[in-house]
Amino acid sequence: MADEQRISLEPEKQTLLNHHKEKHFTAGEIVRDIIIGVSDGLTVPFALAAGLSGANATSSIVLTAGIAEVAAGAISMGLGGYLAAKSEADHYKRELKREQEEIITVPETEAAEVAEVLAQYGIEPHEYAPVVNALRKRPQAWLDFMMKFELGLEKPDPRRALQSALTIAIAYVLGGLVPLVPYMFIPRAREAMFASVIVTLVALLIFGYAKGYFTGSKPLMSAIQTALIGAIASAAAFAMAKVVQN
Amino acid sequence: MADEQRISLEPEKQTLLNHHKEKHFTAGEIVRDIIIGVSDGLTVPFALAAGLSGANATSSIVLTAGIAEVAAGAISMGLGGYLAAKSEADHYKRELKREQEEIITVPETEAAEVAEVLAQYGIEPHEYAPVVNALRKRPQAWLDFMMKFELGLEKPDPRRALQSALTIAIAYVLGGLVPLVPYMFIPRAREAMFASVIVTLVALLIFGYAKGYFTGSKPLMSAIQTALIGAIASAAAFAMAKVVQN
Repeated sequence: MADEQRISLEPEKQTLLNHHKEKHFTAGEIVRDIIIGVSDGLTVPFALAAGLSGANATSSIVLTAGIAEVAAGAISMGLGGYLAAKSEADHYKRELKREQEEIITVPETEAAEVAEVLAQYGIEPHEYAPVVNALRKRPQAWLDFMMKFELGLEKPDPRRALQSALTIAIAYVLGGLVPLVPYMFIPRAREAMFASVIVTLVALLIFGYAKGYFTGSKPLMSAIQTALIGAIASAAAFAMAKVVQN
Repeated sequence: MADEQRISLEPEKQTLLNHHKEKHFTAGEIVRDIIIGVSDGLTVPFALAAGLSGANATSSIVLTAGIAEVAAGAISMGLGGYLAAKSEADHYKRELKREQEEIITVPETEAAEVAEVLAQYGIEPHEYAPVVNALRKRPQAWLDFMMKFELGLEKPDPRRALQSALTIAIAYVLGGLVPLVPYMFIPRAREAMFASVIVTLVALLIFGYAKGYFTGSKPLMSAIQTALIGAIASAAAFAMAKVVQN
């Protein structure tokens, strides 16, 4: 009884919510897309360039391959990501339409599904009945509840597809140019490669640190892991280039 | 009253749920990873090879660059995906620990948050009070409810990180080899390129169709879009390679 009294006092509840700040970290969709783009952009063009340098290509060839790869990669990730986001938006629309129809045609089943969602948390029928009944009187809220709690789908922002694609593509290009710039100024690929290794290693460490900071992981560990992936990828590219050249 | 009676009849509800099959489509995590790997694998190495061929490289150089890129890309996507999944798992553990502490130290605030979640759906305090009280008596269920409905976090499967990484990496390698195989048998890159274009176009159409089928989009549209991305990426690579070569 005392509990029910406390819970129904909206102003008191709101005060508690305002005073208590929950520091649940959210990286942000744009930061996430930048991380996706730069992660591959800093790694693959660098490894490709290093591998070709190791196979005695000229800086001209390394640059040709590198810039071509950056262009192709940016388009593949950008356009691919855009279409994937559009596909998810279409999927959401279809599921929404189906739920809307079911709320009208088979309301008993939908009410049973709400009950099932709540029953999973040990809530008894007499406890969740008022909630189910409340939802049945509000079709829009009922629909939102089913979409989120039964299907786990969030309404996608229509601008996000384009924004995400451009962010990833641009991030990939900027990331990819970092290891390639030395090859634009140093004609001997082997020499350019050393400059590229140093520049890219520093970039990977800085980016890895920032990534860890923004995603709430240990930044130092993240910096080392990111640089390590770059090292492993370029070692593999180096080895494979040597193998192909025999 | 009649509503409450209907809802509390668990057997009747279960019958409704069993009879009514909701055809909500789920692509599956493994299929999703294969799509991610093959999408880039079929596109970027193909575009890189075409771009270099257009810039008059030999099949040997094209193959060196292509195989090196496939190795680097597989590692970047695979290892990168693995670390990202591990990072999400760590994030989940941290949020879980925080919610667990808050349920013990500031239960009134957590109860208020449950109320806030339900209030968003127009549910009145006297309607959701029994649910909030029921959760307060079951700490584990309360914790699960907060993780899912307040934070929107699902408990990650620890094996998924490795499984996902390997799936994406292998899919990328298999996708990347398709456009490169012609260069292994045809020493003149320009000739090999034509074979590569045909082989990859067919592969992109088939893969795009399958992707549409598995994700519930229109398969024919998906096939055309996938092939189109490959065409645009290789056109860009071709153009950039020409530009770099002057």
